Amino acid sequence: MSELRKDPIVNRWVIVAPERARRPEMLVEHARHAPVAICPFCPNQEAHTPPELLARRAAGSQRNGPGWTLRVFPNKFPALRVEGDLSPEGHGLYDRMNGIGAHEVFVECAEHERSLADLSNLEVEGLLSAYRDRVLDLRRDGRLRCVMLFKNHGAAAGATLAHSHSQLIALPTSPKNVADEMKGARRYYRYKERCVFCDILRQELDEKTRIVHENNSFVVIAPYASRSPFETWIVPRRHRACFESCERSDLADLADALSLTLRKLRRALDDPSYNYMFHSAPFADESSRYYHWHIEVMPTLSKVAGFEWGSGFHINTTPPEDAARYLRELPPE
Amino acid sequence: MSELRKDPIVNRWVIVAPERARRPEMLVEHARHAPVAICPFCPNQEAHTPPELLARRAAGSQRNGPGWTLRVFPNKFPALRVEGDLSPEGHGLYDRMNGIGAHEVFVECAEHERSLADLSNLEVEGLLSAYRDRVLDLRRDGRLRCVMLFKNHGAAAGATLAHSHSQLIALPTSPKNVADEMKGARRYYRYKERCVFCDILRQELDEKTRIVHENNSFVVIAPYASRSPFETWIVPRRHRACFESCERSDLADLADALSLTLRKLRRALDDPSYNYMFHSAPFADESSRYYHWHIEVMPTLSKVAGFEWGSGFHINTTPPEDAARYLRELPPE
Repeated sequence: MSELRKDPIVNRWVIVAPERARRPEMLVEHARHAPVAICPFCPNQEAHTPPELLARRAAGSQRNGPGWTLRVFPNKFPALRVEGDLSPEGHGLYDRMNGIGAHEVFVECAEHERSLADLSNLEVEGLLSAYRDRVLDLRRDGRLRCVMLFKNHGAAAGATLAHSHSQLIALPTSPKNVADEMKGARRYYRYKERCVFCDILRQELDEKTRIVHENNSFVVIAPYASRSPFETWIVPRRHRACFESCERSDLADLADALSLTLRKLRRALDDPSYNYMFHSAPFADESSRYYHWHIEVMPTLSKVAGFEWGSGFHINTTPPEDAARYLRELPPE
Repeated sequence: MSELRKDPIVNRWVIVAPERARRPEMLVEHARHAPVAICPFCPNQEAHTPPELLARRAAGSQRNGPGWTLRVFPNKFPALRVEGDLSPEGHGLYDRMNGIGAHEVFVECAEHERSLADLSNLEVEGLLSAYRDRVLDLRRDGRLRCVMLFKNHGAAAGATLAHSHSQLIALPTSPKNVADEMKGARRYYRYKERCVFCDILRQELDEKTRIVHENNSFVVIAPYASRSPFETWIVPRRHRACFESCERSDLADLADALSLTLRKLRRALDDPSYNYMFHSAPFADESSRYYHWHIEVMPTLSKVAGFEWGSGFHINTTPPEDAARYLRELPPE
């Protein structure tokens, strides 16, 4: 069983999951892993993954067999497990609890060579709908506080398998950056009695210099204090704290915004590695007035992440106004 | 002139330094940079760098010529400059100020092939003494609030030149992680009237399971909530908020602790890329009672940093007790 440990200074929780690797020699090998011969995410390889939680399938096809266009299953090497109790306890001045949670994989299409930016808007909408279904299911587990949906595309962004996929991690506590964001939004709301994200949208739509794309329900911007070149946020126009409150029409517009963003970034930056993450309010939080869910897309363009990651100190060589203008004017392929 | 911009939600400052690269094509090239033919950090190449701020030289050698064993100069492509005014101003709901500060490079030895772990304790002590001299000089500039000393070793950790070097960045504001750490330490002090780092040291010295090394003035530990395998902290026994308050005898003991840590990590992990950063109190902060300076050394073993960097959510596959035992029992080479 993995465990969650809290740093006593900055209240940052860390998952210590020793089941995945142990001796230093193994760590070094892991960092230099060779490509796998058989892709466990391809059709007919379903036996290499845990049984599916959800799939979009051709009529008549069998669970855990081929015939799917989208497939969701628990991570084979999960950082967290759904079975057991949290058992939080102190250890001197330290805090720990059991590694309870969920870690799921979304294989986004059957074809090994296609990437998310190749999918049709309808296929992307199907993925977003699967995200929502899984979050709505996990919300019912009273032990869980927070779900993170994210994608690592490309080795430099941390993807270990090439077949296009995204992931979900559900936690019994809020990670530090989520907690910081909620706190910042709450502080702004107390001061102004307005949502900071709504105010940002209003200013961006007024200034127009950092807008990448707009549709009926979403605005794509290069944020004012972008941490890295071509950082891009997808923000819903309507004030809502949680992604899973999206309606069907929202998901179609979100598919348009996400797909267009990924295609423009691919063209502008020659298929960069990237991460995206859904920023959505924790389940139990009374955040409906002050928090505003959104997606942050971060291309991996430099290797300075190591130091910046540790210090929270970022140097960005591309002003977001330049990035937004470039992306805005670029045909999406 | 670069500028500092503040994220209005989490109060994270970012340096937007467009002088270093602009068009997306340049960014992509930058990420794939080829090795340089001439090393600008080698002796006889001093004309490729800005004039030196400090050097340890053989008697009779000329400033900005060969004959040095350690050389410090401003970064040729600085993220921040010392000339000018801060001129902080609002921009709607955003905040900005000019990119005033210092960005300096410490070339740690004349020989291109030697790394910091190859240097003698006396040479490392000379480097630490140069760090202290530069910080003491920069403290006198009333515009600056915070100095960060750090090293990126290896391409995976963000080093762009192979010749062994470290860096200093002085800022007119505190980066988010520094501010968070000060706040956490202050909160603990208010509650317990004790320094959280002193309490950590006491518990670690009592439990002994996460100790890597001890000498008269420093304790090397694998922290309880390590973010990554073999994360290692070097903590002074004596409660002091700032690195630059070290005395001469402290620097000799610090050289022993740092050198031994780097040699053990090199041996355990087959010369890994790593970052280290000095965590020291900001200049103007009334932190002498509650903050406790230290060094954090972080080997770069996996590529998942992209997502973890954005989320503040870490999965560590090596319990710090295992890492500490392994390092403790390992001969240093």
